[in-house]
Amino acid sequence: MSRLLVTGSEYRTIPLACQLFQSREPLPLDCGRSLETFQIAYQTYGELNADKSNAILVCHALTGDQHVADRHPMTGKPGWWETLVGPGKPVDTTRYFVICSNVIGGCMGSTGPASINPATGKPWGLDFPVITIDDMVRAQTRLIDHLEISELFCVLGGSMGGMQALEWCASYGERVFSAMPIATAARQSSQNIAFNEVGRQSVMADPEWRGGRYLEDGTNPAKGLAVARMAAHITYLSDDALHRKFGRNLQNRQKVTFGFDADFQVESYLRYQGISFVDRFDANSYLYITRAMDYFDLAADCDGVLANNFTGTKTRFCLVSFTSDWLYPTRESRAVVQALNAVAANVSFVEIESDKGHDAFLLHEPELFDTVRGFLESARAKRGLPAAGRA
Amino acid sequence: MSRLLVTGSEYRTIPLACQLFQSREPLPLDCGRSLETFQIAYQTYGELNADKSNAILVCHALTGDQHVADRHPMTGKPGWWETLVGPGKPVDTTRYFVICSNVIGGCMGSTGPASINPATGKPWGLDFPVITIDDMVRAQTRLIDHLEISELFCVLGGSMGGMQALEWCASYGERVFSAMPIATAARQSSQNIAFNEVGRQSVMADPEWRGGRYLEDGTNPAKGLAVARMAAHITYLSDDALHRKFGRNLQNRQKVTFGFDADFQVESYLRYQGISFVDRFDANSYLYITRAMDYFDLAADCDGVLANNFTGTKTRFCLVSFTSDWLYPTRESRAVVQALNAVAANVSFVEIESDKGHDAFLLHEPELFDTVRGFLESARAKRGLPAAGRA
Repeated sequence: MSRLLVTGSEYRTIPLACQLFQSREPLPLDCGRSLETFQIAYQTYGELNADKSNAILVCHALTGDQHVADRHPMTGKPGWWETLVGPGKPVDTTRYFVICSNVIGGCMGSTGPASINPATGKPWGLDFPVITIDDMVRAQTRLIDHLEISELFCVLGGSMGGMQALEWCASYGERVFSAMPIATAARQSSQNIAFNEVGRQSVMADPEWRGGRYLEDGTNPAKGLAVARMAAHITYLSDDALHRKFGRNLQNRQKVTFGFDADFQVESYLRYQGISFVDRFDANSYLYITRAMDYFDLAADCDGVLANNFTGTKTRFCLVSFTSDWLYPTRESRAVVQALNAVAANVSFVEIESDKGHDAFLLHEPELFDTVRGFLESARAKRGLPAAGRA
Repeated sequence: MSRLLVTGSEYRTIPLACQLFQSREPLPLDCGRSLETFQIAYQTYGELNADKSNAILVCHALTGDQHVADRHPMTGKPGWWETLVGPGKPVDTTRYFVICSNVIGGCMGSTGPASINPATGKPWGLDFPVITIDDMVRAQTRLIDHLEISELFCVLGGSMGGMQALEWCASYGERVFSAMPIATAARQSSQNIAFNEVGRQSVMADPEWRGGRYLEDGTNPAKGLAVARMAAHITYLSDDALHRKFGRNLQNRQKVTFGFDADFQVESYLRYQGISFVDRFDANSYLYITRAMDYFDLAADCDGVLANNFTGTKTRFCLVSFTSDWLYPTRESRAVVQALNAVAANVSFVEIESDKGHDAFLLHEPELFDTVRGFLESARAKRGLPAAGRA
């Protein structure tokens, strides 16, 4: 189903072990500009059934990509949600046809700021239009059209993936039978904009960023991007998780060194997170995708009334939050649930007790697995798909 | 009492509106090295009484300095704790003799990495020894000796100032009649080390940092330091405070600009915090002082038993925390209170309801003012000083 190919240019070359969808139809964007052509890199797992009723779209988070359940071609690591997606897993690929696509603005094969601008023959850089979550989803609808799927059985995702799931339901609800927005919000909070802004300023402060023209100049704002990742990574965890994992443990030493090397394990861990990230991610993509998150505010599109996004919805919803997630805390999910209740939508909500912070949605959380399995099974029955064990 | 003088060298010159204490006695440091000579810049307010029993030492936080209650000579802004310290204020300078000194490692006149290394005639840079909170306090004891004060009526401070207050009680308890550690902890948490490490990495990633030799090279790691300050500043606030203050309000515009300028007010605010900070603070001092905070762990010095620091203490304690402070949350203060209870110390504890986050200790918080006033008044009575109104 997937093949290894190398895509790119003299500026940035990445190995792709997935499929490519080329759109020749212009994509109008919220900023008023449009992409004349664009490409989406995507991965699929399982088989689409005869009436195309078993398709699940998994939406990735800020630094994720299409490799939700297969080995990453650059890092060699398992798919980012292999805990949840695969044969016999809660999102069972022996039963569902799972699609995961790299968002536009991304850097793993979909059109983004590191792609070649057809008008200049050079990487877009900051000439790439600023995109929104809505734009990402609009591009995804083209892929789903291309796959000739009229209705998705489920759209699910965590964090920015959950924003996309909500946007699908708000803008293309008639094409979504069920949805699971996990550890997410209907709008980016002030504090989250603030953290994203720190990350962007860190990238742009790096002289190797060159006003976004680093690919042409052969430079690499790796240090700025690494610091951005370090700051963001703290927000993915929790105080308790850090305390349990690292505490004040020292790094291979009995005593502090009275210097600025990584004395504490938590310092060493963070540095590794920063350094390993820059090998696989494009700095400008980081700017564009964080910007899309910051602009996300579903209520603002409906005169400030979130519920108006979902009037008359037939989609079945299940929202999930984690108690120690301070990036997208439970109250954000609750606000969505209240809006859905206001339009009498079919919605369930699970708050999972966990000390792992925002990252919990990517980790071993049996209650999450049970929730996803149970919700999909119940939706299968409603949709008239064969139940588990009788696929 | 204070005078405006200019101190420094060809490398860094700062206007000083305070007093200077020059020590010719070597200062042994926790790292095993010592400072042969050192200087402390300090400010005093009010008059020392005849038996020298009314002295209050105020200890400053990470980026604070000696100008607790008078206009800052570089920024022109009011003293950083003028809400609390001054004539008729809770720390009443018509009644108490208030001392506030710049910590060693700092950059407002006390010896630090921007000072001239006598051995080379050049700024210390990273050759300056790594210091600890204990070292800062040991240097302060020399200043208090110089002022011929045998016992401080009170030592108080917030955040890193609270760490110093605790260190005073642990190491020089016989010289402290009462102490108010506010919004602080007996050890730096893993998460706080992580945030400090992001700040240090941001400074050190700036090519103008030059391995710490920027003063000699005539460069300035302003961008790296600004990003460090931005990240730290978020931790001083709270999600609620940011939401109340900024929400998703746009900056002078009706609509988002689809670009990377500061669209949101919170972005503009953070950028200002970063830019204005670098004008008054030395990048290497930021490294040294954050390192001192990270190394702070009072229990570690006593075989892991925090209470052992305070065995037999006669000091009267009052600890204060704020409900929305997630940098030094209430549980950190509670741990100190429990340790003090274990040695039957005289301790009170107030958790103040506030949505302002860690910064609450510096802001208009009437319950804090009442608490400080009440605690000092009660300690005055015990100490046999004249009560308020009969000074």
